[in-house]
Amino acid sequence: MKRFVCVVALPLALAVPAQAQSQPTAKNVIYMIGDGMGPAYLSAYRYYLAGKPGNAVAPTIFDQLLVGAASTYPDDDTWVTDSAASATALASGVKSYNGAIGLDTDKQPLPSILANSKRAGKTIGVVSTSQINHATPASFVAHVASRKSYEVIANQMTNAMTAATPELDLMFGGGLSYFSQQQLETMNRAGVALATNWQQLDEIEKLPAAALLAPVALPYAIDSDRDQRLATMTFTALSLAESNPKGFSLLIEGSLIDWCGHGNDIACAMKEMEDFAAAVTVAKDYVDEHPDTLLVVTADHSTGGLTLGADGEYQWLPLEVKRVHASTETIANALLHTTAEHYAQEWSKYVDFELTNAELTELALLANENMYTVAAKIGQMLSVRSFTGWTTTGHTAVDVPVMAYGVGAEQFTGYQDNTDIPKKIINILAID
Amino acid sequence: MKRFVCVVALPLALAVPAQAQSQPTAKNVIYMIGDGMGPAYLSAYRYYLAGKPGNAVAPTIFDQLLVGAASTYPDDDTWVTDSAASATALASGVKSYNGAIGLDTDKQPLPSILANSKRAGKTIGVVSTSQINHATPASFVAHVASRKSYEVIANQMTNAMTAATPELDLMFGGGLSYFSQQQLETMNRAGVALATNWQQLDEIEKLPAAALLAPVALPYAIDSDRDQRLATMTFTALSLAESNPKGFSLLIEGSLIDWCGHGNDIACAMKEMEDFAAAVTVAKDYVDEHPDTLLVVTADHSTGGLTLGADGEYQWLPLEVKRVHASTETIANALLHTTAEHYAQEWSKYVDFELTNAELTELALLANENMYTVAAKIGQMLSVRSFTGWTTTGHTAVDVPVMAYGVGAEQFTGYQDNTDIPKKIINILAID
Repeated sequence: MKRFVCVVALPLALAVPAQAQSQPTAKNVIYMIGDGMGPAYLSAYRYYLAGKPGNAVAPTIFDQLLVGAASTYPDDDTWVTDSAASATALASGVKSYNGAIGLDTDKQPLPSILANSKRAGKTIGVVSTSQINHATPASFVAHVASRKSYEVIANQMTNAMTAATPELDLMFGGGLSYFSQQQLETMNRAGVALATNWQQLDEIEKLPAAALLAPVALPYAIDSDRDQRLATMTFTALSLAESNPKGFSLLIEGSLIDWCGHGNDIACAMKEMEDFAAAVTVAKDYVDEHPDTLLVVTADHSTGGLTLGADGEYQWLPLEVKRVHASTETIANALLHTTAEHYAQEWSKYVDFELTNAELTELALLANENMYTVAAKIGQMLSVRSFTGWTTTGHTAVDVPVMAYGVGAEQFTGYQDNTDIPKKIINILAID
Repeated sequence: MKRFVCVVALPLALAVPAQAQSQPTAKNVIYMIGDGMGPAYLSAYRYYLAGKPGNAVAPTIFDQLLVGAASTYPDDDTWVTDSAASATALASGVKSYNGAIGLDTDKQPLPSILANSKRAGKTIGVVSTSQINHATPASFVAHVASRKSYEVIANQMTNAMTAATPELDLMFGGGLSYFSQQQLETMNRAGVALATNWQQLDEIEKLPAAALLAPVALPYAIDSDRDQRLATMTFTALSLAESNPKGFSLLIEGSLIDWCGHGNDIACAMKEMEDFAAAVTVAKDYVDEHPDTLLVVTADHSTGGLTLGADGEYQWLPLEVKRVHASTETIANALLHTTAEHYAQEWSKYVDFELTNAELTELALLANENMYTVAAKIGQMLSVRSFTGWTTTGHTAVDVPVMAYGVGAEQFTGYQDNTDIPKKIINILAID
């Protein structure tokens, strides 16, 4: 965290609101995606921070930046997008089919705003808490018919970083297991600074740089002994990218909000929101110090059909959510590695309320099931207690929030389609 | 619909965007509340209009006007509001307990923006598709400890219309059965034009006026042989109110979106959205012709925990929703008035797809249950087919959309609390 102190603050006189400029052009864009972060996640996080009903409510960082909403439907036989189609839309301004990574419905490559930025001489990079070759960051760099082609994507990302004229300057996230030793050596030979742990990330001095900080995704925030994972990566990415006088374009994803949503795991989701919020705060602080920067924060879709109220009760209880200190996956794994008579004891290591005997019996009946089945049952038990509602383990077609700050932010006010967002960014960066 | 043609359009030169004015003051406000209309309702309505996935998607009237979102929590031991507390907040700018009609948590009366408007010499009125003494319109006029005190509210509304110095000039909606013959005669003697059917509504020449067009609520739009109920009342209200040179403040509620949501009845909800959208369009057209007017559209809370996706499927099927031509209550009543062997035939009068034998059996098992139980089961069957998700028969704490247009509209951009909305309106009307 050493480089931020070197940043020279611009004179205060320059820090005029972007709204006062008639034809704003931004030098930099920080484009942040909370994967799966539908509107209910923003409300939930606000009340999660407030705690008990009746406590004072403060606007969150998301509330402070909110300006509009976006539709997310793909060009497919459904109104409900997956993360690949929506990330492709958010990267290129063109809708595609579910599963598409940077390709249109004819399987033709779509240039992303990162490619446009690179052509304009900017530094570009992708940061995520999932494996870096997962759908969202992949759609900004790679072009593959199926999001499941993880090795192909890793290869394209390696090639992008090591090309004679590099097409990618920075990738920070998880995903080490998808990159072969040969690919890592290729990056090393090409002068890419490589980090495979947080200490090494902190030691990176210049770009190009790749940090692959976990075999697949990073651990869930709620399971992690490291706070502010995405904020740390964001801070480091900004510090490394800002030396380019032509500016930078960074894609930064809070990936695991979505994963917790798929698991209908509210405590997990709130901790990922906290992690993402810290990263957004770092980005907002950067814009405050560098008023030539645009910050856009949105989501690719809403996951799980989350709502704050269930079963006819006019209630949602964040204090119950805060009593849970591990993901349902971690708790399920722990239970499956002991015997039913030790469930209550094991449970108490992770959760600050006791299960009923009926719930313990329900869990014992699942002793031969796989981890995800047990985790799903635990998710239900937590949701019932907190009156958290879910309608699906998949995605929904509900519009997502749009937040913006800095140069041109007012252009994102109101309703827009997700394909409008990169088009506006391209205009504001003047890189079309 | 005769008066609108008499409206003299202002010179085009006056129709400058509100944003260009530095200290905007509006003469009129049209304040519209879609009861229960959480964010998922706006997304759903857009795709409901589009129909089949792959069809062109057009921004709805709500999309065109969207500027922000609002939190809705009450001053109570829950984050989830009811319609009374939220309407009191939207009317007065002060949070109160669930159930409160125009009272604070100490049971002291709270002046509403309509009272402020009246004091400033403006014409004021309330319009709803529910009974006019229901929570939302009531909270703008009455002051009662419990929303359930329908007769007390009707009495206060009668008194407001018939006072020596009237405190209410217009009320259009349902609720005739809550007003005694004596109250109606009192209104008549005080010179209040009274309408109890649509023909009489059309014949009203001047204010004060009351239209009580159904014993309780108006029929659901999906069950009604009359289109554009709220649009017609809105148009008439605007036509009558606009003669006051000091302006008007009108509260207009699409009440039954919420009721369909409580019933988890997606087809019913979409038809109420259509009805509300038509009324919002009338209001927007009015602002286009009268640029001294502010239009604000929001919701009091989100009902039902609606989402567009269920059971792990990446799908939502509005075409299935469009095959349903009656509310689940109407269908349930019809089934309960025949015998199980005629269910399939009866069903086919209302719905353009057939029930499975298993579904028919499920319904037959409910033959001795009450209408609401049968309606709930039918709602589930429709939701399963369309992949519509619900989490509750009550409300949720999810933020609601905020739409604004006309003078001062830009002040509603972004996140705000529901109590901020009337405060902003009061400032824009300059009636504090």
